[in-house]
Amino acid sequence: MIIILKPTATEADAQEILAQIEKAGLKPLHMPGVERTVIGALGDERILQSLHFDNHPQVEHLKPVLSKYKLVSREIYPHDTVIDVGNTPVGGDQFTIMAGPCAIESYEQLLETAQQVKASGATVLRGGAFKPRTSPYSFQGLGVEGLKIMEQVGKEVGMDTITEIMDVNDLDDVARYTSAFQIGARNMQNYTLLKAVGETKHPVLLKRGLSATIEELLLAAEYIVATGNPNVMICERGIRTFETATRNTLDLNAVAFIKEKSHLPVIVDPSHGTGVRTLVGPMAKAGVACGADGLIIESHRNPRESVSDAAQALSADDFSQLMQQLVPFIKASGRTYQEALDAS
Amino acid sequence: MIIILKPTATEADAQEILAQIEKAGLKPLHMPGVERTVIGALGDERILQSLHFDNHPQVEHLKPVLSKYKLVSREIYPHDTVIDVGNTPVGGDQFTIMAGPCAIESYEQLLETAQQVKASGATVLRGGAFKPRTSPYSFQGLGVEGLKIMEQVGKEVGMDTITEIMDVNDLDDVARYTSAFQIGARNMQNYTLLKAVGETKHPVLLKRGLSATIEELLLAAEYIVATGNPNVMICERGIRTFETATRNTLDLNAVAFIKEKSHLPVIVDPSHGTGVRTLVGPMAKAGVACGADGLIIESHRNPRESVSDAAQALSADDFSQLMQQLVPFIKASGRTYQEALDAS
Amino acid sequence: MIIILKPTATEADAQEILAQIEKAGLKPLHMPGVERTVIGALGDERILQSLHFDNHPQVEHLKPVLSKYKLVSREIYPHDTVIDVGNTPVGGDQFTIMAGPCAIESYEQLLETAQQVKASGATVLRGGAFKPRTSPYSFQGLGVEGLKIMEQVGKEVGMDTITEIMDVNDLDDVARYTSAFQIGARNMQNYTLLKAVGETKHPVLLKRGLSATIEELLLAAEYIVATGNPNVMICERGIRTFETATRNTLDLNAVAFIKEKSHLPVIVDPSHGTGVRTLVGPMAKAGVACGADGLIIESHRNPRESVSDAAQALSADDFSQLMQQLVPFIKASGRTYQEALDAS
Amino acid sequence: MIIILKPTATEADAQEILAQIEKAGLKPLHMPGVERTVIGALGDERILQSLHFDNHPQVEHLKPVLSKYKLVSREIYPHDTVIDVGNTPVGGDQFTIMAGPCAIESYEQLLETAQQVKASGATVLRGGAFKPRTSPYSFQGLGVEGLKIMEQVGKEVGMDTITEIMDVNDLDDVARYTSAFQIGARNMQNYTLLKAVGETKHPVLLKRGLSATIEELLLAAEYIVATGNPNVMICERGIRTFETATRNTLDLNAVAFIKEKSHLPVIVDPSHGTGVRTLVGPMAKAGVACGADGLIIESHRNPRESVSDAAQALSADDFSQLMQQLVPFIKASGRTYQEALDAS
Repeated sequence: MIIILKPTATEADAQEILAQIEKAGLKPLHMPGVERTVIGALGDERILQSLHFDNHPQVEHLKPVLSKYKLVSREIYPHDTVIDVGNTPVGGDQFTIMAGPCAIESYEQLLETAQQVKASGATVLRGGAFKPRTSPYSFQGLGVEGLKIMEQVGKEVGMDTITEIMDVNDLDDVARYTSAFQIGARNMQNYTLLKAVGETKHPVLLKRGLSATIEELLLAAEYIVATGNPNVMICERGIRTFETATRNTLDLNAVAFIKEKSHLPVIVDPSHGTGVRTLVGPMAKAGVACGADGLIIESHRNPRESVSDAAQALSADDFSQLMQQLVPFIKASGRTYQEALDAS
Repeated sequence: MIIILKPTATEADAQEILAQIEKAGLKPLHMPGVERTVIGALGDERILQSLHFDNHPQVEHLKPVLSKYKLVSREIYPHDTVIDVGNTPVGGDQFTIMAGPCAIESYEQLLETAQQVKASGATVLRGGAFKPRTSPYSFQGLGVEGLKIMEQVGKEVGMDTITEIMDVNDLDDVARYTSAFQIGARNMQNYTLLKAVGETKHPVLLKRGLSATIEELLLAAEYIVATGNPNVMICERGIRTFETATRNTLDLNAVAFIKEKSHLPVIVDPSHGTGVRTLVGPMAKAGVACGADGLIIESHRNPRESVSDAAQALSADDFSQLMQQLVPFIKASGRTYQEALDAS
Repeated sequence: MIIILKPTATEADAQEILAQIEKAGLKPLHMPGVERTVIGALGDERILQSLHFDNHPQVEHLKPVLSKYKLVSREIYPHDTVIDVGNTPVGGDQFTIMAGPCAIESYEQLLETAQQVKASGATVLRGGAFKPRTSPYSFQGLGVEGLKIMEQVGKEVGMDTITEIMDVNDLDDVARYTSAFQIGARNMQNYTLLKAVGETKHPVLLKRGLSATIEELLLAAEYIVATGNPNVMICERGIRTFETATRNTLDLNAVAFIKEKSHLPVIVDPSHGTGVRTLVGPMAKAGVACGADGLIIESHRNPRESVSDAAQALSADDFSQLMQQLVPFIKASGRTYQEALDAS
Repeated sequence: MIIILKPTATEADAQEILAQIEKAGLKPLHMPGVERTVIGALGDERILQSLHFDNHPQVEHLKPVLSKYKLVSREIYPHDTVIDVGNTPVGGDQFTIMAGPCAIESYEQLLETAQQVKASGATVLRGGAFKPRTSPYSFQGLGVEGLKIMEQVGKEVGMDTITEIMDVNDLDDVARYTSAFQIGARNMQNYTLLKAVGETKHPVLLKRGLSATIEELLLAAEYIVATGNPNVMICERGIRTFETATRNTLDLNAVAFIKEKSHLPVIVDPSHGTGVRTLVGPMAKAGVACGADGLIIESHRNPRESVSDAAQALSADDFSQLMQQLVPFIKASGRTYQEALDAS
């Protein structure tokens, strides 16, 4: 529930109400504004009603939060959230490009790819050190060694970094060596992991599960934010449908829907969303057009040699060409990007 | 199979080969070019091989058509097909807007809506006279009376027209009163209907079935073209998935994929593709960005009074605003649109 | 709405009410019973309310029909419907086996297969004369010649027959030569065809569309019954999902659900529902166990030579073995079958 | 790869080959038989080929394992695996019933439910102590306290027990207090968790993910077995499709398919597979009929008071009635059950 205080309410009034909410076992939220203070109270609606805030002399009115997700909803925070991934702001006016290989294979491979994608406009370097693989017999990633390579390459090239975390035991390492966590589609409802990253303030890119509804995706984000970490970015990376011509079905409806309902930034992954190299470009443009805040794209110095997801990785040339083609679409969507690139 | 003749081959050589193909019970295609003639032969590959064209002295080489669809494939015709819907060219450089109400309700309703959408840039008027309804107890459309209203409004306002055909018995009426057939999602594999429209030269907008794969959609188009009507436009209108926040999942991957594989124009329907008024705009922009040749959008002079699909229809103001927002995206995609609008 | 008359109501009272319903433009249903008469009124609920039957002196009470489907619902007819396919009753206590090849290929092929499946317990012979094929270049069936073969074989072997109808123009031929229509998955929402078979009294097996919800399936059945033909059997034949190990996902939940909500007989098709020969047996047993009234199974005298669906057809031996294995499951489900077989 | 040794091969020959496999970095499997010894070698096929076992004098022949899953495949172990969940054998001739409430709510609730389900034939008690909930604001389970209640009730009533594990940190507690782990649908590809339970010998019921393919499910089982725990049971609990009349679509095709391809026991969950109380019975019977080794069913002493999944829980009476109805189907499937019940 949202509790809007009267303009005459003092800080002491607000603190008294917040204390009452907490004492009743609910989650209090303090949102002081210029004209008036807004307070949130999350939890069992029946307990909320028993507190009778509607009769409180300093309460102007109460507004229920209708969606199941609360903290991630625009009903509570109407304005766009901007999250700092290292030095890269994600959300708001800026359009962000994250790029890099599927897996970190070696220092040389990551360095070369990083230099290439940075030259074309990417500011965040992606790459997997821990790889969730369907078969136990597939390459599982370089592990901590990969994280260290990523940190070194990030510093040398001047890029922020993001990598997937699969195991709570790797939390400290991933937080130490990279700028942001990625939670993969298979772990979207791994609540142990969601709560663990929720206990940090490290940015999190939360990928949609293969058959997760939009509501489930936003509730998974709610887990992280409710635990205490507001720095969540949502990632649409394609859902599983009956169609087999493409690896997944990129659900851009979901991007437009989430941008309307939630204040969190949304990133589109046209690489996994299509699984087909030649479709990455058109769908990257469509992602920009439907209102996404950024893209995460797989690029490899030599796609044919990629140990995983070779069919969807862009070469340096293809990536460079796509970035140039994106500029008019980013401008059409009212975002800044080329300027940032020019200045860099 | 594609048979490329040598530059020295004469028209008589081509005719002889075409006759051999026909005699063997296969479908011959004649594609004379500036430098050399190309011949197509469609049908049982074993019979084709038994004709031994690889040994023919005037044949340069043979190329198999790998996809199951042949005539609609870029393997046979690499260049974009442009189809004339009345005076509106669809495909190629031009970007086309089709708009109008879900159902034709009355002369006044259609006239007012047509004037509004034309003023904002639409050139083709849509509206249903025969409505496929899930329940036998729902409004089934005005029938032939609706067709006559559509013809009259089209003439008065100066727009081309398109409407759904569900029954072979209505073929003559729909062809007489409107500029193009629409085949709805439920009838995408109604082969009787596909063959019937295939026997005309009237343009056909073929909508993707709710759970049709891209291959099945292109094979349905192949039915029409193979029967004799090359004037087919493909329409992506959303597929059925597990997601319930939106009415359907607009599969823009399919648009990018079809534009790569087929020479036919592709139209995106963001109204049925989302089923949510506020999402029509973002997804219309995404449709432009991923390479579509046009959009078909539901607009109603008073969406609240619409007898069907009220939740997804745009008001005249919303439609006008969207059309203005689309212009920079259409320009970014290298298409002409504003110019045509300015000139009209 | 259901109108239950008082025990004192006369036939004249009933006729007066039926006339009122009809005059108001609604569909009247007359269901005289032993103790009291029940009348149905289908159509716009607002018109119904304006008739004020709740104030009628001979009306005991009114009961709304909550489901969107009316005539096919147990809310209106609570008892199981039994439909006569030639001499074979479908529904009720009897368990029915329909079997035969995917396509009618020749007199000899159909005769031999019919003799085999009849010897194992099937009473209805299936086989396609008109084949809906995804590609225009695939075998499209023998047409009317196939129908004549089916009639002849049915008479010689002593079996009732069923075949798919795709085109309204074939209606008279299919009705003349066979015992029942089959409407295929692709045509489940071909309303022209539904209405056409609805104007006959010939039995109809209505197959579920690949991505049709249960509600849409029952509403398609409602189209046929509302047009005037009560002899509808529902067929679950697998739906389209993300799973690719099987051709379709046989949705037996739907069978249990429909048996609860509708009085129409339900037939399970484990051949199309799995697409894998070795899975037909287990799923046939599961179909019996979940409450189906019968099975329709593809069998071919020589599956390897089958012109279509070869991977799912059972040989005569496999079919015979399966029928024997089914007997204890049919008995466990409280149906009669072995008795009928013994007597034949 | 499977390496079949000649009858003349000695134990020393086998050990030498196993050593070679291990030295090359592959996983060796020793399967001594009565007539001859079979050896498995899992890992990179190229390395395997470089070992040239086809030239070894004591090797009769080599057989590749075609499926991606190896250890769980019947290609390697053709016979049914039987797993002991406490004193309850799962798999083989016996048919097993697991039953209990969705969540452990209190000692009294679990005790009463356990007594009821045991009296009707269940031998394994289910109930959640750690609940994976879509919303962070829903009841999350009693935790370790719930585990202790389960242990106490299991001892008092004389039942084996199973409960879900979500967090590697709870592994020791869950193993100590219960007879088997359950891994829920959301965690089917939580590889950290799969490997952790793989390092124990405690039985594991692995539930299929909402949109996991059969191959992915078997590969998830392979993770556990390859890590070292062969005691894996597979659970089909419904997949996510477009259908909304039921909570999930119970995919019994998958049960029949897995029974054919894998030697692991398969359990069907008709409660989650339908989400509708009245459909649990028909689908339980169908589960028996298609070849499952057991059922897991939600039952609650008072379904209306259940804190979660109330719509699908059976009352004691409904559960008792279902168990009696199941007996003839279990007998028809050639399994023993009633005998065991009589003896207990």
